[in-house]
Amino acid sequence: MNEFDYINKYFKPLTGNIGRNLKDDAAVFRQNSNKDLIISTDTLVEGVHFIGTENPSDIAKKSLRVNLSDMASMGAKPIFYNLSLSIPKEKVSFFIPRFSSGLKEDQEKFNLELIGGDLTSSPSHINITISIFGETQNGAFVSRTGARNGDLLFVSGILGLSKIGLDNFNKKSKFLSIAKKKYLIPQPRVNLGLLLNNVANSMIDISDGLVQDTTHLAMNSGLCVELDLNKIPLPNIPNISNNSLLNAALYGGDDYELLFSCNPNQEQYLKKISQTNHIKLTNIGDFKTYEDKFLKFKNTSKLPKNKSYLHF
Amino acid sequence: MNEFDYINKYFKPLTGNIGRNLKDDAAVFRQNSNKDLIISTDTLVEGVHFIGTENPSDIAKKSLRVNLSDMASMGAKPIFYNLSLSIPKEKVSFFIPRFSSGLKEDQEKFNLELIGGDLTSSPSHINITISIFGETQNGAFVSRTGARNGDLLFVSGILGLSKIGLDNFNKKSKFLSIAKKKYLIPQPRVNLGLLLNNVANSMIDISDGLVQDTTHLAMNSGLCVELDLNKIPLPNIPNISNNSLLNAALYGGDDYELLFSCNPNQEQYLKKISQTNHIKLTNIGDFKTYEDKFLKFKNTSKLPKNKSYLHF
Repeated sequence: MNEFDYINKYFKPLTGNIGRNLKDDAAVFRQNSNKDLIISTDTLVEGVHFIGTENPSDIAKKSLRVNLSDMASMGAKPIFYNLSLSIPKEKVSFFIPRFSSGLKEDQEKFNLELIGGDLTSSPSHINITISIFGETQNGAFVSRTGARNGDLLFVSGILGLSKIGLDNFNKKSKFLSIAKKKYLIPQPRVNLGLLLNNVANSMIDISDGLVQDTTHLAMNSGLCVELDLNKIPLPNIPNISNNSLLNAALYGGDDYELLFSCNPNQEQYLKKISQTNHIKLTNIGDFKTYEDKFLKFKNTSKLPKNKSYLHF
Repeated sequence: MNEFDYINKYFKPLTGNIGRNLKDDAAVFRQNSNKDLIISTDTLVEGVHFIGTENPSDIAKKSLRVNLSDMASMGAKPIFYNLSLSIPKEKVSFFIPRFSSGLKEDQEKFNLELIGGDLTSSPSHINITISIFGETQNGAFVSRTGARNGDLLFVSGILGLSKIGLDNFNKKSKFLSIAKKKYLIPQPRVNLGLLLNNVANSMIDISDGLVQDTTHLAMNSGLCVELDLNKIPLPNIPNISNNSLLNAALYGGDDYELLFSCNPNQEQYLKKISQTNHIKLTNIGDFKTYEDKFLKFKNTSKLPKNKSYLHF
């Protein structure tokens, strides 16, 4: 059993309406008002999600930004967050001041505030859990379940950089520095998420790799996505083969780009958003009736062999 | 620096109105409605907050209940929670099914639902973070800052049991079994918290020991508490000295009883609550003007020498 199996078997049965059956990137709570409160949680573990030798300020930013990315994928405006930090005693005095200053910088950048949390010791590694809270007008959030037959599948930015950055973390090259930076400090698409709020029929942020997250969208909407391998927006890095780049884009995680579906008549509007905000938006596939698979490929000669990352 | 110093120096400056300056057990968010949303987070770390050999179902209940206790201390009705679980791969198949069934039992008991979270692997120990969400009418939550000069200090139940249970975990005796059970599965005073919502001027749950948590109340209200050592409600356990029992009550943590202040004219009402709900409520001190100390003792001949538990 992998972590999704465990979640489905043991935790999903505990959830109800607010958790939206765990089908989305966040929970939605309507507190008798004209706004919905959007809630999401992500944990970063030393040795699993980060190496441990990074600057604690960068680790703070990454912790916050993977959560901000969940707000982006819901089309929600992030407003506050809480933090639980478990840390070995001997790391406290070096780590916490730098970690706090990283949080401060990103709080100001993204207009957020901390509301509380917990600070405890840990017998070995650092464990960081952040819950983030955002809002939308009632019912205006974008779910993973709303894709329609005939929708186009779009993705923001360029894919695979983060995995390339991680795999080449100790190599030096100016071409790799962008990739390493993207691995260290992702750029959550918060503003784009807000702009897509009325455009996207379904949306998810790419944290588990394009193949896995596309499948999430297709499965939750009960449709099939045909992904065109010729259209995937790849970085251009010398000495790394196209096959490796495509592999990183399809199966590497941590890109935190937005993957969304919309009606073909929105294409012009998306071009305008793309130009005005200097964000690449690429149509990489389309949604079809489900027959036997949630995901099909076009131009399969390029398909690398690999597996998405699973925790268990 | 201990964890409070770190929190004050590095995290408190990041908080704003919603976090209430970290003065309370939870944050309060008013979402443009007639209800306040009360939010709190607690982390349990294997090897720090639990041993690791306990039944995972009990660990689940403890994780949920320490959070429920924060809702109780705010006078809030708990409604939902999220969960982040980081766990070593080799423990997953044994731990998760039992952990989930413990959550299920307590969800039903306390009328809660899970709304989401994160499940990740961990290189060594288990780390559990739960954020809990409750509600009160607008502004009706009970803070730590509202104690008034002349208020009486009350505590629910009996103190020190949890520490006695932990210290004698491997000994067998029918007298110790209640203490061990209280250590393993605390009883959050959720209903009592709701009943005290209009009665208590200030309230906190005892998680760090009576001395530390009384000091929190006094300090946050800018007053001094005089604690009468003759009045502390202690358990009756053969072979454990009164000095050890008082020590456990004053400095041991994890009791999760409610500590609150109220006007002396509420004493009759408290007696009624106590009788109707079969919960012991004891007046153990009173609030005076602050002069040089936040905490003074009456009948100091009994005072044991010890320190509250600090993480760092």
